[in-house]
Parts: sequence; structure tokens; C-alpha cells
Amino acid sequence: MLAIDALQLREDIATLAQFVEPATPGTTRRAFTDAYRAGRVWLREQMQAAGLTVTQDAGGNLIGRRAGRTTAPTLVIGSHTDTVMGGGRFDGVIGVLGAIAVARALREAGVVLQHPLEVVDFLAEESTPLGSLFGSTAMAQGFSAEFLAREVPGWGVVADALVGMGGDPSQLLQPLRRTGEIAAYLELHIEQGPLLEAAQVPIGAVTGIVGIRRADIVCTGRPDHAGTASMAVRHDALAAVAEIISATEQAALTRPGTVATVGSLHVAPNQTNVVPGQVRFSVEMRSLHWPEVVAMWDEIVATVQTACAKRGVTVQIGTCEDSAPVQFPAWIRQIVAQACGQYTHQVVELPSGAGHDGSMVGVIAPVAMIFVRTKDGRSHCPEEFAAHDDIVAGVNALLQAVVAIDAWCEE
Amino acid sequence: MLAIDALQLREDIATLAQFVEPATPGTTRRAFTDAYRAGRVWLREQMQAAGLTVTQDAGGNLIGRRAGRTTAPTLVIGSHTDTVMGGGRFDGVIGVLGAIAVARALREAGVVLQHPLEVVDFLAEESTPLGSLFGSTAMAQGFSAEFLAREVPGWGVVADALVGMGGDPSQLLQPLRRTGEIAAYLELHIEQGPLLEAAQVPIGAVTGIVGIRRADIVCTGRPDHAGTASMAVRHDALAAVAEIISATEQAALTRPGTVATVGSLHVAPNQTNVVPGQVRFSVEMRSLHWPEVVAMWDEIVATVQTACAKRGVTVQIGTCEDSAPVQFPAWIRQIVAQACGQYTHQVVELPSGAGHDGSMVGVIAPVAMIFVRTKDGRSHCPEEFAAHDDIVAGVNALLQAVVAIDAWCEE
Repeated sequence: MLAIDALQLREDIATLAQFVEPATPGTTRRAFTDAYRAGRVWLREQMQAAGLTVTQDAGGNLIGRRAGRTTAPTLVIGSHTDTVMGGGRFDGVIGVLGAIAVARALREAGVVLQHPLEVVDFLAEESTPLGSLFGSTAMAQGFSAEFLAREVPGWGVVADALVGMGGDPSQLLQPLRRTGEIAAYLELHIEQGPLLEAAQVPIGAVTGIVGIRRADIVCTGRPDHAGTASMAVRHDALAAVAEIISATEQAALTRPGTVATVGSLHVAPNQTNVVPGQVRFSVEMRSLHWPEVVAMWDEIVATVQTACAKRGVTVQIGTCEDSAPVQFPAWIRQIVAQACGQYTHQVVELPSGAGHDGSMVGVIAPVAMIFVRTKDGRSHCPEEFAAHDDIVAGVNALLQAVVAIDAWCEE
Repeated sequence: MLAIDALQLREDIATLAQFVEPATPGTTRRAFTDAYRAGRVWLREQMQAAGLTVTQDAGGNLIGRRAGRTTAPTLVIGSHTDTVMGGGRFDGVIGVLGAIAVARALREAGVVLQHPLEVVDFLAEESTPLGSLFGSTAMAQGFSAEFLAREVPGWGVVADALVGMGGDPSQLLQPLRRTGEIAAYLELHIEQGPLLEAAQVPIGAVTGIVGIRRADIVCTGRPDHAGTASMAVRHDALAAVAEIISATEQAALTRPGTVATVGSLHVAPNQTNVVPGQVRFSVEMRSLHWPEVVAMWDEIVATVQTACAKRGVTVQIGTCEDSAPVQFPAWIRQIVAQACGQYTHQVVELPSGAGHDGSMVGVIAPVAMIFVRTKDGRSHCPEEFAAHDDIVAGVNALLQAVVAIDAWCEE
């Protein structure tokens, strides 16, 4: 049975973790920085050493390609190697280094697939002031001219940042790949949640990626002296928002499989002895089933209106930023679940609560993902951890899934 | 009938408003600054011009004294001339300049009271990083050695700041005045609230100063990924605090005459896609009746406990900062109400929701206050405004009250 080189993979993860920005906490290798670029130079060498032909596309994606026996559509595997500020060593990284390990294992075993195989390090998956999911968006969707022309203080113009990463913005107004060109996309990633740990299994088969709606809300009342303004004359913006926070929590609590969060909140003037005059906050809802997201939002908006109206507080609801859920196709989920079953006593299927490059690639190709158990469900922090045995199980399952999909698509 | 010089008072208010800190908004003349000191040099001259003998006590209070026909206890009138950052021209100021106008009117009319009369500009009434109510606390209560030795970064040691204002910290471990030495203290102040404006009267007689309890609360949950952490595993600190904010509002809404406010609130890490791990906020309750304050607090603490317990959020309640209510004695309230009645068609009695130097002086002497109607109830801002006719009515009422108290105490 095919298997990856576990020791080599461990070494690769340790090496890539050395490429970090100076004087930053944890593992910080944010997109568009020198550390990120240096890491990708090393990565290119690893792809080449694995026998892959390395190119970079107009979206700044680093791609290692292995020819197939036919010119069938491509099997793509990969993830990203950028991190958040103060991130960890595993998020995204195990998906890219794991994909290289798969290519290496196939070469060592002398296996040539029907389909060409591509290992992709997608550009800039994590949130940056310029945006997120750059490489996968370029590949599957393209950007608007307005987005490419956007300038962010301290980060420059989006198009320039893409050029700085080897991209070519002039080609990005339409997707770089079309439906049918990619036979399937498989991504290995840490779970970043508590479910696999709770179920005591090393890996899990992902059913889909949740849809997300995000909105910013500003409630404006009136700042008054907290001693002299009686309760009757107040327009307390924070008291109104408190009701909205409770309604947001309640909307998700009553709908299994959904989450809703008020994560960011700013009070003005934010003084002990002044009635809050204005509160600016975010509301975020996620579910694999979009109608649930819409239903939560309707419920929250109803509370926004009543809570503000009864206190004479005005409200501005910003544009909703929506990202649609991606349901993975049944056939590929089944193959991935079977592959996982070879490395875990129990196949756990779970949705992804976080967005991934797979959310974008899902627009033009069948996608599936494998999750690796994450200690305490923590990620995006220096404490982020996945046991190496779990990672190896995940990468081996990825290898088996690649072989199985190659065979399945051939039939 | 005795009357103050309204034009002179208008000029005095305009002149004192010139003493401001450079490059600050509105009228900014914070305690311990050069602008404040310069204003007091000018104030001393005005006191002298009004025939007062000017001294400064060990608490940094500027005192203009007029001898009485007897050595009876002193009648004290005054307020403060410091402001908040970005404050207005009236808060405190009309109480001090009005008191000088009263002394001037008495001299012009050749009236000598039974009691000695003191006009006091109390040191540092407004909140500063070093503290508040300095002069009145020195006079009526004294400071602890710990408080005097306290050092505040950027502001120095409390004792040094007092020395810088002409005070003598070595004398301040006990009150500068004893019960019985002050026959009565009368303070004129802007209302800083909406009641007189709503009642369409220029001035009002104050019944007392509310008691205040302030506490800082820190709720600590766990910061989790807002997508991958299901509702069941979360420890959302902000969701807990939302319940507490609602309970705080409710506690006051159900008790007429009380107010309760969450004015300041900080969320960490305060990111759209992270479940709030920690929330730090203030709770403040006010009432003229202390048992109401205690009842509100008990009710809020009960909610703190249930809201945190059900979310696995831990809670730290900081020390309560209490300031007891001051109920003005019936006899002095009656005299002040009668004096007000000469300048308003309807005598409105109202509590003070804000703290004042009178709160402190009330510890050792009978106190009463007169409020002047404030536009839109606003204070501590550049828009703070009181019509000059209203101010004059208030100062004339102060003058009549001084004469009446002098006669009443004589009987």
C-alpha cells in the first residue's frame, strides 16, 4: 500500500516554520511579506525535488505539475502557506507540504495517474487589509477592476501587491480556469475546531464549507451625563445593542448546526459616567444551509428594529458581505470518507465552519476536504497544534483519495 | 431689594473663559495646569476688588473672606473653576463668579451680615487622573497618607500636585474644617440635566445629591474561532455581558428616581470572526436613596452570576467605589426654595444627579444648591450653555438665600 514519507514531512513542516517575519509572535508569515516570499522560494525547490514542473500563474499561485497518462482534466491538491499575525505552524501548511508528500510518494512508487496532478500553494488565503483568498479567487472567479484598483493605506494598491507576488492583474478580470478543467480539488487542513478531538479520531471527512453573512451595524443614540439624564430621556445605544447581542446568540442557539457571533464592538464616548451615544459592531452568521443564515439574519434585524425604536436610537445596517456555502458532491465525499476509513477506526463527517481556498475552487470544480484533529480546537495562535501522527494519517488519506478519484474519474 | 450686577457678571464669565489650555477644544482649563493657575491669579484679583480678604488654605482652595458683625460660624458660597477636557464656560464657573457677585452686591449695598462670608473656589472638582473633589475633600474629610503618596504616570505624585497648587499636604491627613465651623454652604451650579428646561423654569432648588456606586467588572471566557467553535462549546464573554447590560437598564427602569449605566466597555480580541474572550466594563448606579442603589446592585450582581455561570465565563468584580447621597436639611431647602420663588413663577425642586463640592462639604455642614437651567441638559462639552438671564436669576436667588440664612441662623 502506498504511503508518504512521514519523517520527510515532519522535517518540511519544521523548515517552513523557520520563514517568519522578524520580531513577530508565534509563526507570522503574512502574505505579501518578504518572509512569505522567501518561504515560497524554498517551497519551489521542494516541488522541483519531488519531480514537479513548477510554474506560477497570473494569480500568484505556485503550481507544481506532474503529467498524467492522459490529457484528462487536472486533479488539484494543495492549500496555502501564509499565516495570520501570531499564527501557528500547521494551518494551510500541512495541506501544501502534504500535497508535495503525495506527489513524492507517487513518484517513489512509480505510479503514474491517468490525470495530470497539480500541487498548488494558493496565494494569500488569510485575511489581510487587502483582502483574502487571492489565489483561489483568481483561479475560480477573477476580480473586478474596482477591487484590483483599491488602495489600502500602508499596503498599497491590490494590483501592485499581486504584481509583487509574481501575478499579472491584466489577466485576472476573468477566472484563470474554467469549469471542466479541474477534475477535482482536494484540500487537507487542520480542523480549527473541537469536533474531531471530542470524537477521539485523528482525521475527518468534510461535508462542505459553511456560508457566511457578515454585517456591520451602527446604532446612534445620544451621549448624556449618566447622572443627570433620567432613564426616561435617554437614548442609550449600548442598551439597544445588548438586546441585539442576546438575539444574535439566541438565533443560533435555536438552530442546530449554525453559529452567530458579535465579535467586534466599539462604544463612544466609552466613559463610565456618560450614556453611550454610539455603538458600532459586527454580526456574523454561518451555516452549511443558506436559508438558516437568512432566517437568523431576519430574526436579528427584527430585534435591531424594536430595540432601537423603543430607545429612540437610529440604526445603520451596512451592506451584508455574503459568502455562499459549498456543499461537496456526494461521489467525492464518499471516496474521501473511504480513504479516511483506512486511517481511523471511525469515519467522522463534519462541515467546515471556516472558509478555505476550497470555497472558491468549489465554484468551478468538485471539491472535498480532509480535516486533521486540532489540539483544543485552537488555530490562528502560537498554541495551534496537530499531532504528527494525525497529520500523517491525513496526508496518507489524501494520497489514497487522489488515487481513488483518479480511478473513479477514469471509469 | 438687593440685586447683583448682571453686566459685570457677564463680563467676568467671558473673561475667565479666556484662560484655556493651548490647542484644546471648547473651554479646557483642567486642574493643575498653567491655564488653571493663571485663571486663579485673575480670580484672586476679582475677589480683592470685591473687598474680600483673600487667602489660600492647605487644600489649595482660594478663599475670599468678608467679616461679619459677629464671630458666628461662617457662611460659605462658591464652586470650582476647573473644567474637563473640552468642557464649557459655565460648569462650576457661575458658582464662583456668582459668589463674588453676591459679595460685591452686599458691599455696594452696605450690608454687613451677622456671619462672616467666604467665597470659595474649590481646588480640582472635576475628574483628573489624580482624582477629583480635591479642595472640598481637604476641607471636609482629609486624605489618607496612601492617597497623598499615590503616583500617576504623567501626572506625578498627588502630594506634589497639591504643593504645586499652593497646598500643604502635611496638614491634610485630617479635615481643615470641623462640624460647626461652617453655618451653611450654598452652591450655584448649572443643572447639567433636562428637568428645568422641560419645566420651563430658569432655576430650581436642589433637594440633595445622589449617592453613586461604581464598579468595574471583567468577564473572562475564551476566544474561539467564530466559525469552527459551535455554540455548545463557546464561552462567549460578550453574550454574558449583554445580559448584564440589559439587567442594569432594567434595574433602574423599575425604580423611579434612579439611574444605572454601563458607559464604558472594552472587548478583546474584538475581531469580527473571533468569539469575544474577555469584556471589561463599568456599571454605575445613582439614587438619592442609598437602599435603592444597593438593591439595584444586588439585582445586577445576581444577573452577573447567572449570565456568566451558564456560559462558563469567569467574573471578577472590582471594588465598589461608593459616594453616599447627601440629603439637604429641610430648613435650608425651605429658605433656598423661597429665595428661588422670587425669580421664578414656579419653584421646582429636583435632586442633583451629578456629584459636586457640596457632596463633600455636606459631611460637616448644612448644604443646599441652586440649579440653573441648561440648554438641552448638556454639559462637559463645548455646547454647554446657560442663558445669562437664567444665571442672573440664580445668582440673585443665591444672594437672597445668603441674607435669609444669615437672618435665620441669627434667630
